[in-house]
Amino acid sequence: MPIDLTYSPDIVDLVSRTEKFIADVVLPVENEFAGDITAAGGDERRRTLNAAAKAAGVFAPHAPIEYGGAGLNMSDRLPVFAAAGYSTFGPVALHIGAPDEGNVHMLAHIATDAQRDEFLAPLATGEVRSAFAMTEPAPGAGADPNALNTIATRVDGGWKINGRKRFITGADGAAFFIIMARTHGAPGDRGGATMFLANADTPGISVDRHIKTLDHSMIGGHCEMTFTDVFVPDANVLGEVNEGYRYAQVRLGPARMTHVMRWLGSARRCHDVALNYVAERDGFGGKLGDLGMIQQMLADNEIDLAASNALLVAACHALDRGEHASNETSIAKTFAAEAYSRVADRSMQMCGGLGVSEDLPVARLANELRPFRIYDGPSEVHRWAIAKRAVGRVRKANRNQSAAMSGAQA
Amino acid sequence: MPIDLTYSPDIVDLVSRTEKFIADVVLPVENEFAGDITAAGGDERRRTLNAAAKAAGVFAPHAPIEYGGAGLNMSDRLPVFAAAGYSTFGPVALHIGAPDEGNVHMLAHIATDAQRDEFLAPLATGEVRSAFAMTEPAPGAGADPNALNTIATRVDGGWKINGRKRFITGADGAAFFIIMARTHGAPGDRGGATMFLANADTPGISVDRHIKTLDHSMIGGHCEMTFTDVFVPDANVLGEVNEGYRYAQVRLGPARMTHVMRWLGSARRCHDVALNYVAERDGFGGKLGDLGMIQQMLADNEIDLAASNALLVAACHALDRGEHASNETSIAKTFAAEAYSRVADRSMQMCGGLGVSEDLPVARLANELRPFRIYDGPSEVHRWAIAKRAVGRVRKANRNQSAAMSGAQA
Amino acid sequence: MPIDLTYSPDIVDLVSRTEKFIADVVLPVENEFAGDITAAGGDERRRTLNAAAKAAGVFAPHAPIEYGGAGLNMSDRLPVFAAAGYSTFGPVALHIGAPDEGNVHMLAHIATDAQRDEFLAPLATGEVRSAFAMTEPAPGAGADPNALNTIATRVDGGWKINGRKRFITGADGAAFFIIMARTHGAPGDRGGATMFLANADTPGISVDRHIKTLDHSMIGGHCEMTFTDVFVPDANVLGEVNEGYRYAQVRLGPARMTHVMRWLGSARRCHDVALNYVAERDGFGGKLGDLGMIQQMLADNEIDLAASNALLVAACHALDRGEHASNETSIAKTFAAEAYSRVADRSMQMCGGLGVSEDLPVARLANELRPFRIYDGPSEVHRWAIAKRAVGRVRKANRNQSAAMSGAQA
Amino acid sequence: MPIDLTYSPDIVDLVSRTEKFIADVVLPVENEFAGDITAAGGDERRRTLNAAAKAAGVFAPHAPIEYGGAGLNMSDRLPVFAAAGYSTFGPVALHIGAPDEGNVHMLAHIATDAQRDEFLAPLATGEVRSAFAMTEPAPGAGADPNALNTIATRVDGGWKINGRKRFITGADGAAFFIIMARTHGAPGDRGGATMFLANADTPGISVDRHIKTLDHSMIGGHCEMTFTDVFVPDANVLGEVNEGYRYAQVRLGPARMTHVMRWLGSARRCHDVALNYVAERDGFGGKLGDLGMIQQMLADNEIDLAASNALLVAACHALDRGEHASNETSIAKTFAAEAYSRVADRSMQMCGGLGVSEDLPVARLANELRPFRIYDGPSEVHRWAIAKRAVGRVRKANRNQSAAMSGAQA
Repeated sequence: MPIDLTYSPDIVDLVSRTEKFIADVVLPVENEFAGDITAAGGDERRRTLNAAAKAAGVFAPHAPIEYGGAGLNMSDRLPVFAAAGYSTFGPVALHIGAPDEGNVHMLAHIATDAQRDEFLAPLATGEVRSAFAMTEPAPGAGADPNALNTIATRVDGGWKINGRKRFITGADGAAFFIIMARTHGAPGDRGGATMFLANADTPGISVDRHIKTLDHSMIGGHCEMTFTDVFVPDANVLGEVNEGYRYAQVRLGPARMTHVMRWLGSARRCHDVALNYVAERDGFGGKLGDLGMIQQMLADNEIDLAASNALLVAACHALDRGEHASNETSIAKTFAAEAYSRVADRSMQMCGGLGVSEDLPVARLANELRPFRIYDGPSEVHRWAIAKRAVGRVRKANRNQSAAMSGAQA
Repeated sequence: MPIDLTYSPDIVDLVSRTEKFIADVVLPVENEFAGDITAAGGDERRRTLNAAAKAAGVFAPHAPIEYGGAGLNMSDRLPVFAAAGYSTFGPVALHIGAPDEGNVHMLAHIATDAQRDEFLAPLATGEVRSAFAMTEPAPGAGADPNALNTIATRVDGGWKINGRKRFITGADGAAFFIIMARTHGAPGDRGGATMFLANADTPGISVDRHIKTLDHSMIGGHCEMTFTDVFVPDANVLGEVNEGYRYAQVRLGPARMTHVMRWLGSARRCHDVALNYVAERDGFGGKLGDLGMIQQMLADNEIDLAASNALLVAACHALDRGEHASNETSIAKTFAAEAYSRVADRSMQMCGGLGVSEDLPVARLANELRPFRIYDGPSEVHRWAIAKRAVGRVRKANRNQSAAMSGAQA
Repeated sequence: MPIDLTYSPDIVDLVSRTEKFIADVVLPVENEFAGDITAAGGDERRRTLNAAAKAAGVFAPHAPIEYGGAGLNMSDRLPVFAAAGYSTFGPVALHIGAPDEGNVHMLAHIATDAQRDEFLAPLATGEVRSAFAMTEPAPGAGADPNALNTIATRVDGGWKINGRKRFITGADGAAFFIIMARTHGAPGDRGGATMFLANADTPGISVDRHIKTLDHSMIGGHCEMTFTDVFVPDANVLGEVNEGYRYAQVRLGPARMTHVMRWLGSARRCHDVALNYVAERDGFGGKLGDLGMIQQMLADNEIDLAASNALLVAACHALDRGEHASNETSIAKTFAAEAYSRVADRSMQMCGGLGVSEDLPVARLANELRPFRIYDGPSEVHRWAIAKRAVGRVRKANRNQSAAMSGAQA
Repeated sequence: MPIDLTYSPDIVDLVSRTEKFIADVVLPVENEFAGDITAAGGDERRRTLNAAAKAAGVFAPHAPIEYGGAGLNMSDRLPVFAAAGYSTFGPVALHIGAPDEGNVHMLAHIATDAQRDEFLAPLATGEVRSAFAMTEPAPGAGADPNALNTIATRVDGGWKINGRKRFITGADGAAFFIIMARTHGAPGDRGGATMFLANADTPGISVDRHIKTLDHSMIGGHCEMTFTDVFVPDANVLGEVNEGYRYAQVRLGPARMTHVMRWLGSARRCHDVALNYVAERDGFGGKLGDLGMIQQMLADNEIDLAASNALLVAACHALDRGEHASNETSIAKTFAAEAYSRVADRSMQMCGGLGVSEDLPVARLANELRPFRIYDGPSEVHRWAIAKRAVGRVRKANRNQSAAMSGAQA
């Protein structure tokens, strides 16, 4: 796969070693278990794969250098994470999957020294996994985060948290949770949220069930949870009280982009499977890959993959420049999530009956990719935000112009 | 759901009883087993559901009246089959699923009296199931039927069949097979195919494995089969030798449309689930169902469902008038198969996280519907045929005009 | 072009005579003036074409029999109007264009005897043209009709009308206007509108300018108008006071469908031009029409045209059964208007450089067709209405169920 | 508009001055003449605008420094050319339009010193215009360049050229032509083309007519030409004999990208017009810009524009690194040309009736943008090339693998 713009020799080398590690070590396991990480052994498998990744020198390239990572910036993560995502087990193997990767990123930015020692260090080195407990069942915080109704009440020396959460990725088996809870205002109000760190064995934390979804590669599942009078000492408040949403933004942009990177790998794989299938297969008096309608699907895949990559590059550069890049990441996420579904769908179609069977990995990859149009903000919510910014820009300009004119007249 | 054009009171009543039977008897079973007919008990479950359908007076409405059916024409099958398809177990329950329904249709048209007694009677009454063995693994007959390379050789008193088949729906547990084999010419040649009737216990017939696919509602699976020196007596040749493709056409148009009818039901169900979800659910300061982007998806679903139904009506009327209607059925199949995928996809999207989970049936219905764009001729093959007819029409007109002009000049 | 379902021999004959008339008489004129009806002579040309249509026995087939028309119902209008619409001058030639055709339809339903003599008779026989003055410039009645702010005030013996209108099709040269004005409530309120009949020479009526648009085939243009103290006697109130919107509905459904019929003809012509172009043209080592990507566009055109026709059939049958059919007509209009744009766009693309030139008529037909996604209700407004009905259906069912349950508990 | 990645302060300043020049000087003229450069005065207008551009310091920023340009590389041209393309007269005003800009680029790379003095110098400084005569009427070189059948025959001291050309942009009024003619092989053969420089007054050169197309901003039109025994001395052969296609490639990639840059400006303008329209306009109980379906169109515009820009960035970087970048430029061109049509179409739709009128510039911009999906290679030809490269990559890898394995076994 071509790499847009250029990367340093170190990164090119890391990408190439990652590709080799995925092909030699990870893909065989994924294929054996048809992409089901639980069936493949869950955390036990994770530890084996992590060890292999460390041996191959490709483990946790995003982690801070002080914890043994390569400290890659967002731009350099792109080709590496995409190479890892070529296998749905790749992110687990390299310890760069959601939500751990985003949690490492956020903790590295805002945790206290004590919190770094207790939570970040074992997480960054792959000793443990974590989860990020934000989404709630209706009528709580879903696509609309202001609906947050998990409540943290002030008690002596800390806080008591009560509430229910849903779609908490990786919850089952996580060593600790970052819990978003309301410390101010009422459900529906803007702001007023705080983030808390809590070990999984804290009394009152319960992982109730796995929600079965189309995807099967996320270790620890997507879970429903209950928090009942969970006590969190003041020392475990992450960042400042009532500033939870602001910190979540720190996590959000980068975590959104690494999602897009990882799934870019899976989308490329769908395309490669189809490409290999049609390149040599006979039909209709020639090779399938030389038929116009197949060529159209191949070209549209190439275009979708290239555009997704190009938007990622733009968003990552903006993040690396220190910008919030909310618009760039929303655009890249929305476009790419939909592009990946199209790529997977065309790839299935090109492979005919085998395309919808388990004889080829495309159908299950399509099912892994589909939820991404909903996870991390449905396309509709991102479009809403993108449009609001655009309209807001115009309205603000109009107001400034009016103000200038009335100023001039005065 | 509105019915386009009008139906007689008898049909309106049958539709309404079918809807009630599906809602009361079939859907609970389907939901209990998450749409997996094998998990639900396979043929044993089928027999229970068939008995219930008979008791409710909704069994096999397409079957000839002499075998206890209602002898419905294609136009009248439409609303009934769509009502049955609202549950993915509905077609099995009413015994109107593929491939049995198409086989009944074809046998009623071309079987000899003896073949009717031996094969059609038990099939039409639901005593047994059957399968239609045409598709082959590469480089045999797939999207391109001329590649047929299962061979029937003339032997004393009949034929010996050798070859491999793939994606044979319902093969596991079928009482008999209709086998398409080459009796003339070589793979790649047009024509030269013959259809044979063979009981499942004929020596040399082997059902080798189920191909696991995205769909799980087809009883007897999609199987790989081997035919090794399978002897079929002359009396079991179905129709005339070398005329297999012509007979397959008799089966094809109607069987294609009943596919579209059944899956129309499943697509409507996706829409209904989403509609119920968004109608009452809060979010973004109101009900989801009142948000513009959701309204757009709802409207597009309604449009897609209405257009699919309208194209079905047109094609069924043409078939009922005795036309081949190859173009009408290709158009209806291609449009509807793609429309159903769009409907399912939008419905998932509207339901958010639950949409891609097993908490709602939409995600698995989407997986049931996806293969229909490949089964029964991929969209690309139908488009190819539609375009060839259109271009052929013009070229023929041009030639006629040239001929007329050169005749006028002579 | 195949006709879905079947038509009586009379209709088949009328369609065939209409096709011949269009090909022999109308298309040559349209092509000579590149589809610009004003350049072709406007009303003078109209009178010549009308006379020719009368001579050919194809004039005003929708008009009541008492006025010399054939009194066709909606279902039978479909193939005739589509045949006429094959030329953008066809509707003018047959006197079946907007807004006259819809005005004839509405006047035939609700005009008093005196109004029929004064307004309907000369209109139905083609002696004069008319216009329907409803749409207003912002902030008046546009996509949202409740914003109506042309006001009719009660005066002695009648009403005084004041207001501005926009996009009044056919206004320039119309003999009379049907004016929608508010007689109750304030702009933004639902209802309170009344329809008035006024001759064009009534003092205070001014046709201010033609709005130049992408389409050029509507005789009398799309105009801006001002009504200044226009007096309308009570005898010229059309229908009952304050019931204007209800009557507009009588006009709306059928007028919407005849739009779809006429433009179906233009869309078919785009497809035919492209089909003829690619069928015989060489390129890439063969004929363009045998290339897969071209075949895909051809097939998609055939599918879009067939689906538009099928939805029209369904909606027209419903209207002929006496139903309001608001949902059916909204669905058919929305789908077809978008399908026609797709067909025109693909046809341009297939014709390459010539496709975007005036050497072929496709580019200008595309420009004629484009506005139809906005005229007669933008797609978004129709989608909004379709979705509201769907959601309303569910909410009503839920309320009924709640009521039934609370009744049972009581 | 945000600029992806970062530009040097000089470029940021040039972009900002170009925006101001376009807004203050060019847009008023374009709007006065509704985007018709001929109506605006053709070359006389061009000279006035060029003088103004020089005065504003924004003239010909791509031209070599030795001729007074800024010598911008492709990456830096991007934001400047897009700013100029905001007006359809912008490229003419800055002298950066097709085909001159591409001709300057090519001549700067391959012209001899004498050719530079005679042809490049007056072209680069804006003294004259030029044209590139490659495309031919059927059955000559169109989408398929190998069909070239304009023939150059060896004569004493040079060549005699005979043939017909079509869609020669800028031909009317060009001071000289670069003519592509066959010097080897027969029409249909690969290669064998040579490029010739000929002044417009060379005997035998005839500009026959303007082909009227949807776009009206290209000065000198799209013309049909005849070359009859046109003598070109050896000194005016551009590059080497029989290497014409290779040189055309030098021109092609960059010229393709500058097309995409310029039209990006027009697409952005469509979006801006719509954005301004919906931001403040009332309807349906609020502002149009706050309605979900409008927000969806706004967001899709933003996404399409961002993705087009991002693909341009990637392709330009590759060209600036000295790569051929055929795949990158094909992908960027195909995606962007289609994206711009979508943006223009949505923008029209958002503006309702005014959107398809001349009261706003969107409809005519849509007509300017539409042909770009055909000019410079139809989307289908680019898709065909993209797919062939992808399939070729796989087949080559398979062959290498086979070779390696048979080598290993030997």
